[in-house]
Amino acid sequence: MDDLRGRLRVGVIGGSRPDPAELAAAREVGRLIAGRGGILVCGGLGGVMEAASRGTREANGLAVGILPGTDPAGANNFVDLPIATGLGTTRNSLVALNADVLIAIDGEYGTLSEIAFGLIYGKKVIGLGTWDIKGVVPARTPEEAVELAFRR
Amino acid sequence: MDDLRGRLRVGVIGGSRPDPAELAAAREVGRLIAGRGGILVCGGLGGVMEAASRGTREANGLAVGILPGTDPAGANNFVDLPIATGLGTTRNSLVALNADVLIAIDGEYGTLSEIAFGLIYGKKVIGLGTWDIKGVVPARTPEEAVELAFRR
Amino acid sequence: MDDLRGRLRVGVIGGSRPDPAELAAAREVGRLIAGRGGILVCGGLGGVMEAASRGTREANGLAVGILPGTDPAGANNFVDLPIATGLGTTRNSLVALNADVLIAIDGEYGTLSEIAFGLIYGKKVIGLGTWDIKGVVPARTPEEAVELAFRR
Amino acid sequence: MDDLRGRLRVGVIGGSRPDPAELAAAREVGRLIAGRGGILVCGGLGGVMEAASRGTREANGLAVGILPGTDPAGANNFVDLPIATGLGTTRNSLVALNADVLIAIDGEYGTLSEIAFGLIYGKKVIGLGTWDIKGVVPARTPEEAVELAFRR
Repeated sequence: MDDLRGRLRVGVIGGSRPDPAELAAAREVGRLIAGRGGILVCGGLGGVMEAASRGTREANGLAVGILPGTDPAGANNFVDLPIATGLGTTRNSLVALNADVLIAIDGEYGTLSEIAFGLIYGKKVIGLGTWDIKGVVPARTPEEAVELAFRR
Repeated sequence: MDDLRGRLRVGVIGGSRPDPAELAAAREVGRLIAGRGGILVCGGLGGVMEAASRGTREANGLAVGILPGTDPAGANNFVDLPIATGLGTTRNSLVALNADVLIAIDGEYGTLSEIAFGLIYGKKVIGLGTWDIKGVVPARTPEEAVELAFRR
Repeated sequence: MDDLRGRLRVGVIGGSRPDPAELAAAREVGRLIAGRGGILVCGGLGGVMEAASRGTREANGLAVGILPGTDPAGANNFVDLPIATGLGTTRNSLVALNADVLIAIDGEYGTLSEIAFGLIYGKKVIGLGTWDIKGVVPARTPEEAVELAFRR
Repeated sequence: MDDLRGRLRVGVIGGSRPDPAELAAAREVGRLIAGRGGILVCGGLGGVMEAASRGTREANGLAVGILPGTDPAGANNFVDLPIATGLGTTRNSLVALNADVLIAIDGEYGTLSEIAFGLIYGKKVIGLGTWDIKGVVPARTPEEAVELAFRR
C-alpha cells in the first residue's frame, strides 16, 4: 500500500437527491480529487456521496465512506473502505472530522450540519451551489472547488 | 416525582459568548419554559446554556444538560440533571434529539449544527436573533419564542 | 425541583430477558435506591431496566433511561426522564458514564460491555448474579448491593 | 486501488501495555492477516494496536485505525488509514462493528468491552491469552488465531 497518510483527505458532502447537474458535478469532483492524489471521504450512501465515489473509482482513487448504519456492506458500490458507525445521522460530525478540507455540493439539512461541523473543527469548507453560510468559500465549478481544496 | 414524561421538552441552543442582551433573553426564555411546565434541555455549559438554566432554576423548573464531556460534574451550576456523553461536539445531535421543539438564541457554528439537526429530525426550530435558515420560525421576544414553542 | 445534583446516581444494568427471581431483585434494587435518595440510571428498555425503573417509581424516586434509539418515547413506562442517544448499542458506554456506581444483575453480553465501561471509567461495579469479572464486587442480595453502592 | 471490499477485515484488539511476548504475537498476527489478504482493523493507538499495525505494514497490508480522538494524526505510525471518531473510549464499539472477525490479545477492561461488543454484534471472537469469556474461541498461537479468523 503506498503512503496513504501523506495524502490530502477531501470530504465531499451533499444531498441524497441531487439533480443531474449536481450529480455530474459531484462525479467530476470525485474524479479530480483522485486525479490529484487525494482520498475521498464521504457519508458512503447515495446521491452526491455515490456520484463522488463513482468519480473517484473511475480515476483509480480511494473512497472512504463513513456510514450511519452498523453494517459496512451498506455503503454504495463505489466506496472502497466503508466505516460503519451505528451513530445514525450523528455520524455527520465524523465525516467532517476525517476530512482535511470539505466540498459541499447542493444539500439539505444534513449537508448543513456537516458544513457547520467543518467550520466548528476549523476546516476549510468550499461550497458548490450549496448553503450560503459565512465562512464557506464559494466555487463555481468542480475544477475550481478541487483547486481550492488542494491550495493550502 | 410528578409526571415528567407528560411535559414538553424545550431545547434552548445558543452561543457560549453571548452579549448581555442575549444572556437576558436566554434567562427569560428559561424562566418562561419552566413557568409553563416545560423541561429545559440544553448543552449544559456556559453562555446561553447557563443563562437559560439559571432562568429555569429561578422558576423552579427542571434543566437537563447534555454535555460533551465524560463528567456530569462539568455542567453549569443551574443544570439539575447533567448527562455526560463523552462525544465532544458530536453531542450537539443529542441535544436536538431530546427536545420536542428548539429555541435558538444567537449562536455560532455549534448552534448552526444544532439547528440543522433539529430540522433533520423534523423538530420545530424557533429563532431569536440567530442564523437565518429556511425552516426556522423567527420570534422577536422571549415571550413570543416560548409561546411558539408551546403552540402545537 | 429539589437538589438532584447532590444525589447519588446508581446505574442498574442487566439483561432484557431475566427470570422472575432476577426481575424481583431488580425491582427491589430500584426501590431501595429511591428509598435512600438515589437516582436510578439505566438503559431505559425492558427486563432488568424496566423492573428497576418500576421499583424506583414505586418508591417515588427518579429513573433516568439512556436509550439506544432516537425517540425518548421508546423508554419503558417507569422511566421519568428518557434520554435518546441514537447511538444504538454503543450507548452502553453512556450508561456507565452517568452512574456514580453500578449494580449489574444477571445479564448477557450487553451487560458485560457495561461492566467493562464501568471499570474503564473507574466506577465501583457491584455484581448480583452476573458475570464474574475481576474488579466486580459481589453482593448476595438487593439489600447488600444497594448498601455497597451507597457506602463510599 | 485493488478490491478492498472483497477482503476480510480482521479486528485486532488488546492492551496498550502488553509484555514483549504479547507484542511479538500481535506483530505476527498483523503480518499473517496481511499475508492472507486481510485488512487489519484496530484502535489505532499503542501497544497491541501498534504492534499489529507494524506487522501489517511489514507484510504490505492495509491497517485501519479507529481512534478515540478527533485528529487522524493521532494514530500510530503504522496505521495507513486513521479514522477519527471523537467518541473517546466509546469508540470501542466501532472497532467491533468494522471487523468481520476479532482477535483479542492480552488486554484490560478496554479489550473486554471490545470482546463484549464483538459478541453482541454476532462476530466470531478469537482469544490469544485474553479474557476467558464464554463465546470466545481460544487460540494458542498467532498462526492458529489467524487460521481461525479466515476459516468461515
